[in-house]
Amino acid sequence: MMTQENINKNSFGMIGLGTMGSNLLQNIADHGYSCAGYDNNTQTVENLNNLNNKNIHGFSDLKEFTDSLKSPKIVMMLVPAGEIVDSVIDDLLGVLDKGDIIIDGGNSHFTDTERRFIELEGKGFHFVGMGVSGGEEGARRGPSMMPGGDQEAYEIIKPILEKIAAQVDGEPTVAFMGERSAGHFVKMVHNGIEYAIMQLLSESYEIMKKGLQMENDEIHKVYKKWNEGQLKSYLVEITTDIFAYKNEGEEHLLLESIRDQAKAKGTGKWTSQAAMDLHLPTPIIDISVSMRDLSSLKDLRVEASKKYPDSVNMVYEKNNEEYCDELEEAFYFAMVSAYAQGMHLLYQANEEFDYDLNLDLIAKIWRGGCIIRSEFLEDIYAAYNSEPKLKHLLLNAEVAKNVTKTIPSMRTVVSDATLHGISTPAFSAALSYFDNFRNEHMPTNLIQAQRDYFGSHTYELKAKEGVFHTKWVMENIKE
Amino acid sequence: MMTQENINKNSFGMIGLGTMGSNLLQNIADHGYSCAGYDNNTQTVENLNNLNNKNIHGFSDLKEFTDSLKSPKIVMMLVPAGEIVDSVIDDLLGVLDKGDIIIDGGNSHFTDTERRFIELEGKGFHFVGMGVSGGEEGARRGPSMMPGGDQEAYEIIKPILEKIAAQVDGEPTVAFMGERSAGHFVKMVHNGIEYAIMQLLSESYEIMKKGLQMENDEIHKVYKKWNEGQLKSYLVEITTDIFAYKNEGEEHLLLESIRDQAKAKGTGKWTSQAAMDLHLPTPIIDISVSMRDLSSLKDLRVEASKKYPDSVNMVYEKNNEEYCDELEEAFYFAMVSAYAQGMHLLYQANEEFDYDLNLDLIAKIWRGGCIIRSEFLEDIYAAYNSEPKLKHLLLNAEVAKNVTKTIPSMRTVVSDATLHGISTPAFSAALSYFDNFRNEHMPTNLIQAQRDYFGSHTYELKAKEGVFHTKWVMENIKE
Repeated sequence: MMTQENINKNSFGMIGLGTMGSNLLQNIADHGYSCAGYDNNTQTVENLNNLNNKNIHGFSDLKEFTDSLKSPKIVMMLVPAGEIVDSVIDDLLGVLDKGDIIIDGGNSHFTDTERRFIELEGKGFHFVGMGVSGGEEGARRGPSMMPGGDQEAYEIIKPILEKIAAQVDGEPTVAFMGERSAGHFVKMVHNGIEYAIMQLLSESYEIMKKGLQMENDEIHKVYKKWNEGQLKSYLVEITTDIFAYKNEGEEHLLLESIRDQAKAKGTGKWTSQAAMDLHLPTPIIDISVSMRDLSSLKDLRVEASKKYPDSVNMVYEKNNEEYCDELEEAFYFAMVSAYAQGMHLLYQANEEFDYDLNLDLIAKIWRGGCIIRSEFLEDIYAAYNSEPKLKHLLLNAEVAKNVTKTIPSMRTVVSDATLHGISTPAFSAALSYFDNFRNEHMPTNLIQAQRDYFGSHTYELKAKEGVFHTKWVMENIKE
Repeated sequence: MMTQENINKNSFGMIGLGTMGSNLLQNIADHGYSCAGYDNNTQTVENLNNLNNKNIHGFSDLKEFTDSLKSPKIVMMLVPAGEIVDSVIDDLLGVLDKGDIIIDGGNSHFTDTERRFIELEGKGFHFVGMGVSGGEEGARRGPSMMPGGDQEAYEIIKPILEKIAAQVDGEPTVAFMGERSAGHFVKMVHNGIEYAIMQLLSESYEIMKKGLQMENDEIHKVYKKWNEGQLKSYLVEITTDIFAYKNEGEEHLLLESIRDQAKAKGTGKWTSQAAMDLHLPTPIIDISVSMRDLSSLKDLRVEASKKYPDSVNMVYEKNNEEYCDELEEAFYFAMVSAYAQGMHLLYQANEEFDYDLNLDLIAKIWRGGCIIRSEFLEDIYAAYNSEPKLKHLLLNAEVAKNVTKTIPSMRTVVSDATLHGISTPAFSAALSYFDNFRNEHMPTNLIQAQRDYFGSHTYELKAKEGVFHTKWVMENIKE
């Protein structure tokens, strides 16, 4: 494509120059690509130009911006999910040519991406729905990227994406995920797992603070130790940092000053809702979503705390150091379960949506750059790499061996929290999910009997194919 | 309206003559109303006419059917939710007149009802979205009905509905619920609570069967006893029946022969998804939905049961009779929590959607006819009747008093199940929800700190209004 016309033109265009967009552009420019940035906010464009990076050129006119790009033009959007994406695409259709490439790098809902992909394909444009994880820091130094949609277009943008991605063992944390909306679906599930692990970390904090009555510096040491072992991960690492951070001149952690009302941007909720539509259980993610919601109902909780004062001694009588080892094991169990539920959801989505996902490849690119990167992702990668048709992570022999060791600690930790009035909903959900997952005979035959009793919804029999209905009325009952 | 023209015409028309529609027509006919039934299946119409009920007239021609009705014509649909409802409405618009009344008595999603109400109102028709609960038996002998939408239309159909409804203390279990889609929203939440209570019953069965190793006739006696006390309810009653039902000539309960893969029609899922959209936590309902999904993954569970053989002794060392009393208390706690989460969702929906709901009236009409009718609904009715602005059922003093008594049993039951490898996800979710509901300081300040760390999502401070952001990077940290 190095025609006369393309000489001196920019290789990559970015729409939306917030911190993420600006950082990603700088990352691309660092790798020697000449870039263009567009924003409808002129101040934001000025900030970009003030970087004085010779490879970066800011525009506040969309036509000038796209005219500055090489053909086929590569335009990435990093704008808020929703109607703004549609509106930017509409504008772009007036200034791009058929064959050009539009990348949506925001957190769009996968059903929107699905619709946009089909519409744009029909109009002759390449569309790539791409999840980007790693936060601002990741965008600047190397994110994990989950592009999906149009493989032909991916091949064109691949050299750039592979350079700007985080690198693990010399390999970039970006790969083509699959068809149509696959990229945004994978990113959504990434975020669902992220919600779950953050919730589990908050519950471990609650146990150490209220149950074990530990000081913050002791808690800091525990997370630091976790981050040196099998729990090593970005989220444990930043939690360790948070348990050391004090504002200048203050004696207490900044954490202590922060309100407990957790906010959310919605991707965790989307994950749970999509899982329910696919009839695929992800209870750890579900409860993590609903606990953020409960946290935000502060007035209600304050009122309830007066109505139900602690009826039970919250303080554990334990050796803290030994107990924190048990907690570490339990956290491992719960964390593995959270990843397993997320991977299971990807497995099911692949069946339903024909995404052509490779679960090992997903685990592989999550090992670096993204928020849920962790040592354990090496095990996930190994599991799906050795068994590409693996239905559920907990069925992998190596994972099963490691998880089995932690079950006794998990039972202890959940049971102690239960008895002491300390709320560990995600730990509990991880264990009760597991105990039914490995339950050959669930008691749900009763639910089928009840449904048939009151609604004639029929039931199936163990010994015979078909559906059956019984008139369960009292008259028939022989006691 | 008793004009010459209306003499000898039918008072009520029903479209969809399945068991529910046919039973409801017979119920209406029993109260002296002349009725018309329509179905596009001629055999179904013939079955209706073969009832030889002088008050019931079956039609297989839609125009003849509507021509047989008095003005304003009242036509109720009991057809499968979804596109069929829209298609029937389209057909009806060709044969009805402005001012006529269309009732959707099926399990339509409330957002569909919202859309249809607005469309039909614009065209001059009255539309009533009405939830009907009670199953086939309820339809025949007296259901609980939740009409919403058009109060003017409700006043016209009210005399009929009040006669065919179940009666509690001489009052009918039907009332106008509120604006637009309120009726179907209330019915959806009813079903969500139903899912939760059914899941709790299945878990109590699991504890008695696997933990306490009780025989079915002993379990039968337990449910029978529960149904004579504070747990008295339709669902406990039918569970008692199920634990006595044997097929002719068989030694074992029919229940034992039924497969454990639970099915669902989707209303429970809708409840959880709607609750998540409203940021209102309903974890007991959520887990009940996901456990039905898990139950249906039978092959996976069988495989997992081999990978994870019981590592723990499931058998309790307890006095069964005493333990079942504890279980009864725990069930009460969990059941109350399930109703409380459902009522809380109604409270929040009312705030968001301006439904003009009266929570006491909802509790009042649920006391009879419907699947979740129970003694405890008297307490719910009393709570909202005495405190119309009550934000959460667990904040009512009387409810709090009764629930508080059961907390120790709840902790025992959940902890024992946890230690013995018996899965009680809904019991666990009820307790962990409660322990955070009454938690003035949740550990979610950590989640806010993490979100700000990796995504600059900002946080709020306890002591100062506004939103704040910190650069949490390692360089700043003073250890």
